[in-house]
Amino acid sequence: MSHEQTLSYSELESLLATIFRKHGASPAVAAVLAANCAGAQRDGAESHGVFRMAGYLSTLASGWVNPAAVPVVEDVAPGVVAVDACNGFAQPALAAARSLLTHKARSAGIAVLAIRNSHHFAALWPDVEPFAEEGLVALSVVNSMTCVVPHGAVRPVFGTNPIAFAAPCEGREPLVFDMATSALAHGDVQIAAREGHDLPEGAGVDASGQPTQDPRAVLDGGALLPFGGHKGSALSMMVELLAAALTGGHFSFEFDWAEHPGAKTPWTGQLMIVIDPSKTGGNRFAARARDLVQQMTEAGVNRLAGDRRHRQRQAALREGITLAPGCLAQLQAWAQ
Amino acid sequence: MSHEQTLSYSELESLLATIFRKHGASPAVAAVLAANCAGAQRDGAESHGVFRMAGYLSTLASGWVNPAAVPVVEDVAPGVVAVDACNGFAQPALAAARSLLTHKARSAGIAVLAIRNSHHFAALWPDVEPFAEEGLVALSVVNSMTCVVPHGAVRPVFGTNPIAFAAPCEGREPLVFDMATSALAHGDVQIAAREGHDLPEGAGVDASGQPTQDPRAVLDGGALLPFGGHKGSALSMMVELLAAALTGGHFSFEFDWAEHPGAKTPWTGQLMIVIDPSKTGGNRFAARARDLVQQMTEAGVNRLAGDRRHRQRQAALREGITLAPGCLAQLQAWAQ
Repeated sequence: MSHEQTLSYSELESLLATIFRKHGASPAVAAVLAANCAGAQRDGAESHGVFRMAGYLSTLASGWVNPAAVPVVEDVAPGVVAVDACNGFAQPALAAARSLLTHKARSAGIAVLAIRNSHHFAALWPDVEPFAEEGLVALSVVNSMTCVVPHGAVRPVFGTNPIAFAAPCEGREPLVFDMATSALAHGDVQIAAREGHDLPEGAGVDASGQPTQDPRAVLDGGALLPFGGHKGSALSMMVELLAAALTGGHFSFEFDWAEHPGAKTPWTGQLMIVIDPSKTGGNRFAARARDLVQQMTEAGVNRLAGDRRHRQRQAALREGITLAPGCLAQLQAWAQ
Repeated sequence: MSHEQTLSYSELESLLATIFRKHGASPAVAAVLAANCAGAQRDGAESHGVFRMAGYLSTLASGWVNPAAVPVVEDVAPGVVAVDACNGFAQPALAAARSLLTHKARSAGIAVLAIRNSHHFAALWPDVEPFAEEGLVALSVVNSMTCVVPHGAVRPVFGTNPIAFAAPCEGREPLVFDMATSALAHGDVQIAAREGHDLPEGAGVDASGQPTQDPRAVLDGGALLPFGGHKGSALSMMVELLAAALTGGHFSFEFDWAEHPGAKTPWTGQLMIVIDPSKTGGNRFAARARDLVQQMTEAGVNRLAGDRRHRQRQAALREGITLAPGCLAQLQAWAQ
């Protein structure tokens, strides 16, 4: 009989890396993707954890992504790093550019990383959080694939287009948020469909453009709406401009995977801005962030951005990561 | 009998500059504020047009702001300009730093302007739009004064904390948006109170923390809510961190104007990020922005960010700016 199983973070990471390698990824790419996916599972970000593995493998089988791509890092200007991900995943491109980006941010005070020709199929907060752990402030945007109807439109143009932000805070983990500019993240719709839950009101439309709370109707030719009406829609447009137009990547509506059945990963671009707060007037940044957090806490906020993930991370590191019944057997089968 | 009156943009700008000078502003500060305020009126942004003059004058009379402050511009790093506004208005500080900021953005590819010790009592889009007119991409945030309850809290901490963005677009005016991260802008609440309109649902709470649609209840000890629930709240927190912690300015909850009755202007900070898109992979940025706009238009979007303002601007430049009955007489009285 199938039951829950628990393994350590490093066991899960190692298992996922084996799976990625078995399905064509280079050791370097496999290591980056495995750490990312195992990290999301560890932090309780279920929609971007092992749940995503089927999509990764389906994509790799389709020939849509080059899982052995070697990103080409370009030192463009004192504040600019560009990376051609060469039709590979975005996370190895970020890993390849990271030390140069950090160096530029510290010397120029601010730097931007423009990744193009890349596939991002993961959560965005793992991309920004490490910068905050080093005392830097990071903001990143990535566009995805057409599934969000702009405010005032009748059919989808934008992707779920998340914005992630991380900042150091004295005496605690960094402040980190990662929000889809759609009313829901695509992963949440997939989970709701799998588990048979309704979507909240105002989140989606069906194939005929009518409002629906049925996740399957959204996935089956329907679309999502932006969060917060015209404001979320404007932010989503900004993400398209920054992540695609500014990097040289594809817009969410531009790529065509029709010849790669099974492909699931958006082939777009990603922008990251990193600021060294010690360079500006705010050279006590982390202490000032703590002052803000204290005010928010006194006003009644009992969970700050990233808190839940940090708590789940601590618990997982102590007690291991528990996988749903059948999950481990599936992963082990993929690793054969 | 009182009636509407029409004057040209330059007549209005000149009249407002006279008013500012008569109330203590230096000629340099008066010119910047007058152009800003007349420009908002010209563009149909009523909440930041001549409606604001009473607040400016009340503030100046209170001794809260130094209307003759000379901003001190610091060349901090290849990508960083800092300005101490010296307890003056933010717009003259931006004007003083602008050429250095533009130079840095073009040479380093990205630059950040950190204004501190500044008062921002205007719309934010006039600060970013000129950069897009020169082919640059600009993002700015400014915090304000405590009037927004963080998601999950019981009392206000954040300001209305707007985010403004501008990007060039081939064949049309720049794409520009300026959104409060509160459900409504403070100026809109003031106008609703003056005109006796209800606020939309979910926008505010009264002094006891209960939901209300009465603008006077919001102004009289009540507060606004963030737009879009926890997402808008996270963005508002980000604005506090960027505009205050990173610049060395005050948070929205930190300044105390109790000894300056009549003061209306938040004494905080402002951050602006400017990117030169020709430096990244997207050296066809404006043409790519046009591609996105075309898709949005074909999907049914019939009004893009900034369109209404640009149309009103053209009409005002052609036909003049029409002021409400009594308004011109009031302005002329202030100019005496």
